[in-house]
Amino acid sequence: MCAFVKNEFVIEGVEAVPLLYDNGYFGRPKEDGLYLRYVEAAFLLYKQKIEIEKPDKSGLFDFETFFEYAASIEDYFELKYIVYKDLRERGYYIQSSAVDLRLYARGTHPGKSPAKSFVTVHSERISLPLRDLVKKLKSTNNTHKELILAVVDEESDITFYRISDPDIKEQFYGNVIRQFPKVKKLERATIIKERVILWDKTLSQRLYKDYFFGRFLDEERLQLSLTEALYLAKNDILEIEDLNNKKMSFEEFTEYASRVESEFSQKYSVYETLKNRNFLPKTGFKFGTHFRLYNNFTSPDKLSHSFALLRVIQTDFEFNMQSMSGAVRLANSVRKNIIFVYDSGNGAEFIEIERIRM
Amino acid sequence: MCAFVKNEFVIEGVEAVPLLYDNGYFGRPKEDGLYLRYVEAAFLLYKQKIEIEKPDKSGLFDFETFFEYAASIEDYFELKYIVYKDLRERGYYIQSSAVDLRLYARGTHPGKSPAKSFVTVHSERISLPLRDLVKKLKSTNNTHKELILAVVDEESDITFYRISDPDIKEQFYGNVIRQFPKVKKLERATIIKERVILWDKTLSQRLYKDYFFGRFLDEERLQLSLTEALYLAKNDILEIEDLNNKKMSFEEFTEYASRVESEFSQKYSVYETLKNRNFLPKTGFKFGTHFRLYNNFTSPDKLSHSFALLRVIQTDFEFNMQSMSGAVRLANSVRKNIIFVYDSGNGAEFIEIERIRM
Repeated sequence: MCAFVKNEFVIEGVEAVPLLYDNGYFGRPKEDGLYLRYVEAAFLLYKQKIEIEKPDKSGLFDFETFFEYAASIEDYFELKYIVYKDLRERGYYIQSSAVDLRLYARGTHPGKSPAKSFVTVHSERISLPLRDLVKKLKSTNNTHKELILAVVDEESDITFYRISDPDIKEQFYGNVIRQFPKVKKLERATIIKERVILWDKTLSQRLYKDYFFGRFLDEERLQLSLTEALYLAKNDILEIEDLNNKKMSFEEFTEYASRVESEFSQKYSVYETLKNRNFLPKTGFKFGTHFRLYNNFTSPDKLSHSFALLRVIQTDFEFNMQSMSGAVRLANSVRKNIIFVYDSGNGAEFIEIERIRM
Repeated sequence: MCAFVKNEFVIEGVEAVPLLYDNGYFGRPKEDGLYLRYVEAAFLLYKQKIEIEKPDKSGLFDFETFFEYAASIEDYFELKYIVYKDLRERGYYIQSSAVDLRLYARGTHPGKSPAKSFVTVHSERISLPLRDLVKKLKSTNNTHKELILAVVDEESDITFYRISDPDIKEQFYGNVIRQFPKVKKLERATIIKERVILWDKTLSQRLYKDYFFGRFLDEERLQLSLTEALYLAKNDILEIEDLNNKKMSFEEFTEYASRVESEFSQKYSVYETLKNRNFLPKTGFKFGTHFRLYNNFTSPDKLSHSFALLRVIQTDFEFNMQSMSGAVRLANSVRKNIIFVYDSGNGAEFIEIERIRM
């Protein structure tokens, strides 16, 4: 029998079920036939396993005409086909839905166990709103599956990313329990443009050596980042003065810092969250991100490898695929995770993006 | 004698010349004294080599008050001081000018030979317009010096970048002489959204295996990027049709491609320049850039390592220090150079940015 096109399906006769479904899990068997999605039909046409009649009954589709037909009807058909074919040829069973591909773990198949992952196919050129990604991630987590993003680049190479919430895998906490010292009196520190200098030798050495705050200007004086300085001021360790030796309130300081760095408040709030979660955050500038993160600390001389890079993003952020690719690649090359942090309104939420090989 | 502040200088008596200049090349000796820049004076004050009288003659500066005084008068004093101190302590001789630091090669010093590099100090938070960087680079090249950008991050860590024009070091050309085949008849290729599919098996295989165009959809059909497709069309190898099998002119195709990718024309023009310079450019998506660049090619199986990543930028581009850091770090981690390309109006010009250790 010859398959025919009906809406978003290509329908084969029930007699095809043993060969195509029982043997390869293509399509979904129904009473009146085997319902194939376009990507499945195109793949089977390429494999010369089926024949498809043209809708105007003028004859059979060849691969080219079916491909053009499907691409003209189904959004992102060509991308989905590229990913479907790639995964299928790596030995995975896949069910195609209207939107995503459902991937079965190696060794299992439809009917035997539930799908392991949702694979969502995305073009290199289209940016992906954080909002959409979070929505997909939450619904994937609700069904206990993993979310995979397959990005197809301009030369049709595919990069796979696993998207996850580090708070779901296991609670996202570090082991740095002591975050700051207790002091008897507040020391003075001066804000000089984009940094704060602490002039007291004893406190400078204590803050650096025991808690890894700042960096020495010389043996006696410590330079602190704006974030660190506010954190220390709020925890009653120092008080910040301007260049005219006038004391600044937290509000004045925050206002000043926000002029230096427009995202200061948001970044500071993430910094505090990370401290409260027993991480030690330091600047991630060298890696092009906001923070690098340590989950252990004993002394600056015995510094462990920072395990993650964090980028603070707004809720209306859109992932540009090219920069995402660069950021993930960079993090991987230094053996760190990359985690994006945003404020959901109920506090900080995290999204980890990891490049995976299928 | 005690040094005193005069405008942008701290002036020591001539009797300080043997100790401070002849021994350490601090400042510039003039008839009426040794003229020190603020960064030099601060460094000497920290080393307890000089004493500086306050301008109101109320006594001597201590380090903190001089630092605050200098920071309130000289732009970016604190950044310049951090970099000056760092380089000085690594054993370099430096002359400070109003704007930049002039660095002498190891083993030489002022008076013995000309400075080797201009070190321009820049804050992590301030973006650097391409225009300014090019101007600095051209004037540095004119004096046969190298340009070094020292970026100070929020925790006062310094990253040094060498900025150069790859066309100056040696002419920037590759070794890929044969860029496309000669064919007897134009083959048809169909544009499908963001890619072009070539249906002819023989040409597909030839283009991929001998010239590394595109990527196979399957054994018989080749997917080409929009850039590759236009290049092949312009060189009389294929003609591009839309999904309704209507032939597209170069103009129609360019217009279509520019809707898919707003920077298409500019990117295409760089692609052509690179081909004309005997490079083999392929997409740099996985590295977060526009192109990766090969300077040799024999066959896809014996592919050499691509040596550079290229990012196409506009003339009004501003380097964001954080993304520059990420891009350079990523390129380094995969042992590639990173080169930015822009259209100067007289064709493509290149800027290479390389992280260096001092």
